[in-house]
Amino acid sequence: MAELHLLSPAGFRAGAVYAGIKSKQTPDVALLICDRPAAAAAVFTTNKVIAAPVTIGRAHIASGKLRGVVVNAGNANACTGRQGEKDARRMCAIAAKLVDCEPKEILPSSTGIIGHLMPMDKIEMGIRGAAAGLGSDLHHALHFSDAILTTDTRRKSASARFRTKKGTGVISGVCKGSGMIGPRMALPAKPIHATMLAYLTTDAAISAPLLRKLLSAASEASFNAVTVDDHTSTNDTACIMASGLSAKIDSVADTASFARALEEVCQSLAYQIAADGEGATKVVTISVRQAKDDLSARVIARTIANSPLVKCAMHGNDPNWGRIVSAAGMAGVPFDPERCTLTLQGAVVFRAGQPVRFDAQKVSRSLAAPEVKIELTCKLGTGAASCWTCDLSKDYVTINADYHT
Amino acid sequence: MAELHLLSPAGFRAGAVYAGIKSKQTPDVALLICDRPAAAAAVFTTNKVIAAPVTIGRAHIASGKLRGVVVNAGNANACTGRQGEKDARRMCAIAAKLVDCEPKEILPSSTGIIGHLMPMDKIEMGIRGAAAGLGSDLHHALHFSDAILTTDTRRKSASARFRTKKGTGVISGVCKGSGMIGPRMALPAKPIHATMLAYLTTDAAISAPLLRKLLSAASEASFNAVTVDDHTSTNDTACIMASGLSAKIDSVADTASFARALEEVCQSLAYQIAADGEGATKVVTISVRQAKDDLSARVIARTIANSPLVKCAMHGNDPNWGRIVSAAGMAGVPFDPERCTLTLQGAVVFRAGQPVRFDAQKVSRSLAAPEVKIELTCKLGTGAASCWTCDLSKDYVTINADYHT
Repeated sequence: MAELHLLSPAGFRAGAVYAGIKSKQTPDVALLICDRPAAAAAVFTTNKVIAAPVTIGRAHIASGKLRGVVVNAGNANACTGRQGEKDARRMCAIAAKLVDCEPKEILPSSTGIIGHLMPMDKIEMGIRGAAAGLGSDLHHALHFSDAILTTDTRRKSASARFRTKKGTGVISGVCKGSGMIGPRMALPAKPIHATMLAYLTTDAAISAPLLRKLLSAASEASFNAVTVDDHTSTNDTACIMASGLSAKIDSVADTASFARALEEVCQSLAYQIAADGEGATKVVTISVRQAKDDLSARVIARTIANSPLVKCAMHGNDPNWGRIVSAAGMAGVPFDPERCTLTLQGAVVFRAGQPVRFDAQKVSRSLAAPEVKIELTCKLGTGAASCWTCDLSKDYVTINADYHT
Repeated sequence: MAELHLLSPAGFRAGAVYAGIKSKQTPDVALLICDRPAAAAAVFTTNKVIAAPVTIGRAHIASGKLRGVVVNAGNANACTGRQGEKDARRMCAIAAKLVDCEPKEILPSSTGIIGHLMPMDKIEMGIRGAAAGLGSDLHHALHFSDAILTTDTRRKSASARFRTKKGTGVISGVCKGSGMIGPRMALPAKPIHATMLAYLTTDAAISAPLLRKLLSAASEASFNAVTVDDHTSTNDTACIMASGLSAKIDSVADTASFARALEEVCQSLAYQIAADGEGATKVVTISVRQAKDDLSARVIARTIANSPLVKCAMHGNDPNWGRIVSAAGMAGVPFDPERCTLTLQGAVVFRAGQPVRFDAQKVSRSLAAPEVKIELTCKLGTGAASCWTCDLSKDYVTINADYHT
């Protein structure tokens, strides 16, 4: 069986070209088109500073139908005022004309630097080139996934199959994200959709309202649980289109099967974002169990994940668990150090308010792995949550102090 | 007029020695003693993981009277269970016996690594040495301020005079703080005291309840407005003792004069913490004006101050204002990019939702200064707040990835 990719679900084509917007000479303008009207859903950033394509995209997705997405990298089209909205609308109009649909059936996305007007000549040339090269082969999928990258060092994609009573289907996705990655935590009481740029395709026959509900749930447990720098972007978007050409989702069991596959794809993409976080040398998975409730667990996990002191300790393979316990204590939700147990790579380092004797050298060696697990059991309830982050290295500073306006 | 220092207010003596607790061979155990019972107040960390000396200190300050403080650096006595509390109490008992007072008249503090039991033999030797060397000269003050430092690269002290109807008085203070510095923001609706280690002396004759009120207010506008890494410590403490040997504070005008001097001292100390933040090459002052209310202004200022992307841009002298505006947008409080004006070192870079043409090279040169000002006017109300942070450099990573358990 050939490996699944973004265009494996029936009904989708993609195209991408280099239009000279990014400095890196890889594709930067791309189209992902469904040959027929697709049921569609999307979640967007909750930042109050919203990029023009997000404003337009929110309006276009309202109908629950899309024919495709048009994306560029290298310029975020954010903080660009009325001209920015005009440009985002024009991207949709150009793409729509080329694939013979309405502009409102196209969702626009942009990623890159904030505050620069779009080079619309290049964008238009790019969209025309992408449309001319539309196709469904693996290399089309790869070009599309390349075209959405910015500081990412590698492509991110995932696929999964689902099974219904009447047959099977595929869900695939690609995403980008390396820096300016992070749901914000200022209002933990209000779950938010701080998603990344992610595009998902499926051949399922599924209604738009159900798709919306399942995408929202899958995002909570994936995109909204990854943080690199806790900086919620102005452009975050995750969008799924369903061509309807394979199995119909029309029972509770079908829905569960589809939901599992969707969550699997989204979690794989989120994990890949943490692994490719700016300057990252490892993924750190923080699992909090037996917190007062799920929200408390999530807030504790994210507070640990966002502490620069914890992230530096992970970079230095330092079992400095005091930084982790004190991060849990400052999360602003119920936490009692007298009850908790903390493990690093499976080794207990703190339990019931007391330091535990452990072999620091051995634990340090175990932290020198591409995947590190921090597990905190709170003994206050049944709440649980996990999140993913990466370590904080000097390369993070290099990338972000030198990426110049 | 000789320069003012911690022991300039009448009635105080200090002593400090190196007892072998820090690896750096500078003083690490110290006493600050008032020759008579001082009116006293203190604010403490709100982290749910509370170091033993904070637990004991909270109990001892309840009476509003202190004879002194005993401090050590190199070991935080945090996450050390019942033995830790026993050790903190013992520090007070040893000090109290040497200066002839009750143990509960001594406030204990510790700073350093979390999760290690205190080397009580060294601590006891240290306290005895510090008591033997008590005095009121400049060098006694300097030794005390050295003894509380950890990753700090320099001493931090400040003094101010106040004037009452009947005379003048002095407020002085020293503090430490370089890493694990930051009030947490998870519950912005609830103002918190995420203070650093700071000790203040004054010769004012002032009641403990008034002192408590004024210290709390001064802390909000100083220690609680500084962040290096947004990691609230388990040990944060700010304590003031008033010997009562100079001017009496007994009118509204006197109180205002004293409050102004106290705020001036606390703000100077807080600024010095930002300037000496781990790896810092500059102080960044973020001022938010015309926000919906003061709390919104504070949350926006802190969200900007804590963004690693903003901090890296400041390190690289990059006028990448999109990171600042998007940080304001993710703060979770009212904010409208269409109304705001953002300036960097006085140059307008973003106004009313539109990018503004500016000389990027010139602004970049202006950012290469030891003090950088970011000013954001929101046009949503009358709320205002300022906070201080520092840039994020590779040295921050070096310091925190290599500081090993």
